[in-house]
Amino acid sequence: MDTLYFGVDIGGTATKFGAFTAEGVKLSQWEIPTDTADQGARILPAVASEIRRYAENDLSRVAGAGVGIPGPVLRNGRVERCVNLHWSDFNPARELSALLGGVPCFAGNDANMAAMGEYWQGGGRGAHSVILITLGTGVGSGIILDGKVVYGAHGLGGEVGHTLCDPDEPLPCNCGRIGCLDQIASATGIVRRAERMLAACDTPSALRSLERITARDVFDAAKAGDALAAQVADICMDFLAKSLSMLSCVIDPELFIIGGGVSKAGAYLIDLVTRHYNEYATLSEQKARIVLAELGNDAGIYGTAKLAIDSTR
Amino acid sequence: MDTLYFGVDIGGTATKFGAFTAEGVKLSQWEIPTDTADQGARILPAVASEIRRYAENDLSRVAGAGVGIPGPVLRNGRVERCVNLHWSDFNPARELSALLGGVPCFAGNDANMAAMGEYWQGGGRGAHSVILITLGTGVGSGIILDGKVVYGAHGLGGEVGHTLCDPDEPLPCNCGRIGCLDQIASATGIVRRAERMLAACDTPSALRSLERITARDVFDAAKAGDALAAQVADICMDFLAKSLSMLSCVIDPELFIIGGGVSKAGAYLIDLVTRHYNEYATLSEQKARIVLAELGNDAGIYGTAKLAIDSTR
Repeated sequence: MDTLYFGVDIGGTATKFGAFTAEGVKLSQWEIPTDTADQGARILPAVASEIRRYAENDLSRVAGAGVGIPGPVLRNGRVERCVNLHWSDFNPARELSALLGGVPCFAGNDANMAAMGEYWQGGGRGAHSVILITLGTGVGSGIILDGKVVYGAHGLGGEVGHTLCDPDEPLPCNCGRIGCLDQIASATGIVRRAERMLAACDTPSALRSLERITARDVFDAAKAGDALAAQVADICMDFLAKSLSMLSCVIDPELFIIGGGVSKAGAYLIDLVTRHYNEYATLSEQKARIVLAELGNDAGIYGTAKLAIDSTR
Repeated sequence: MDTLYFGVDIGGTATKFGAFTAEGVKLSQWEIPTDTADQGARILPAVASEIRRYAENDLSRVAGAGVGIPGPVLRNGRVERCVNLHWSDFNPARELSALLGGVPCFAGNDANMAAMGEYWQGGGRGAHSVILITLGTGVGSGIILDGKVVYGAHGLGGEVGHTLCDPDEPLPCNCGRIGCLDQIASATGIVRRAERMLAACDTPSALRSLERITARDVFDAAKAGDALAAQVADICMDFLAKSLSMLSCVIDPELFIIGGGVSKAGAYLIDLVTRHYNEYATLSEQKARIVLAELGNDAGIYGTAKLAIDSTR
């Protein structure tokens, strides 16, 4: 029987599993609810139990497992604090390994793991260096250089969502600072800007008839020719483009991959971001490409499996 | 006789040489004027001639040479354009190798090479990831992650000087954009800010008695208790600290190394930058350290020698 690798993406509500061959072929995927009771003490036993079940209790077949965590993971695997899972001062890779009779286990931040997944088998296939930006409730990101995650010395590598973006934003970010990219280019930020702009003018807009606006509504209306919605999308993606041009002067990746719920706006969004990025990225004739993510919510299980495969070679 | 490695830092006016053992011991260093006539065609023959002379024409002793170039170097070694040396579409490493009977030669951007030098034998000794920021006529920088230079996919890795820093700066940067760190935290930027602030107020200041102000004057006066000079230094280093906190959310290095002429202000400058950095870098309890560069203008020959040593292993 084949050697197995597992990629596990532990979220606050659901835990996703992928079983892979050593060559990276996904054999199966499934998910279970995340039980965060007892200070998160049930989470890893449930993960271990799923892996044992899939491997039919033959742990000699399991060559490694990677877990993605919704929070910073230090390079030595230690999690100082993971609010969503109620963990503090915890080493999930070591704990999981103990629960699996010493199977080599590895942990990483979920956004970094998603970046690794997209780099490996998603929108970044074939590139050497990529930055994944996910536009969801917040702005997540992960940086892959030469096939390796940029973890950072204090677990903050790729926390691009918390770089300064709009000093004029009046609300503080939940990190405590002002004007983070997270506040501006996330679905939340797009909706907030739409609501503010609607309140500040009388311009007719399809968005006015909606009881509750979503980022998707904004992009749908923009695509349909709604001027105000188009302006909202333009302003938010202009800020994103400015941040990408900053990243081009630091990391200079081969490509940027845009994922998360907002990226469902597809080619319209990529065209918008690319147009503004090309205005700002003037330091070199050659520009980074900006592409869509391809793995959606599965990126994390790919990335964590890849982490386990690379780490056991 | 020992194996030799050469580190060569080619500047617009002088070319510096260092001869090293394979273990990284510097045996000798010297410099010659850079002759940029004939579209820069004389530069590499002069470099080859110095290396041959030092090696007493026994090229079998020369294991490798690295050259630092004042401009972007693509990953394949190609230089699209180097204004100061009058080169365009040129591969200096390959040319130098041909002039040295096939000795392995390697090229890198001078700021990246200086970062490598400081990482290896300067302020960054013992760290895994460092970012060197040099505050001189402009702001140079280089990023070393796990002992490797971050070159970038288009030769722009570590061009931190051209990240946006102060959108309110009225003058354009020589890169064509507005408000780059290069304009604000460089010696040039510090002097410009001092002149503007002196012109805009009547506050007494020791700087008023000087015919021509330098960044050194500003820091000397600030240290001596001159309130206006202290304010200029504070504002400029606050902007730098903001940029460092941005870099901590992208690369998250173990330490920042501050070099260049302005860094001669020493502990006063480091304390100032660190104080502001700690205000901005709130995402993690642990902070990157900020230290002084140690190799001064020799960083480049160390870094290029290290590049040659690493590349021939």
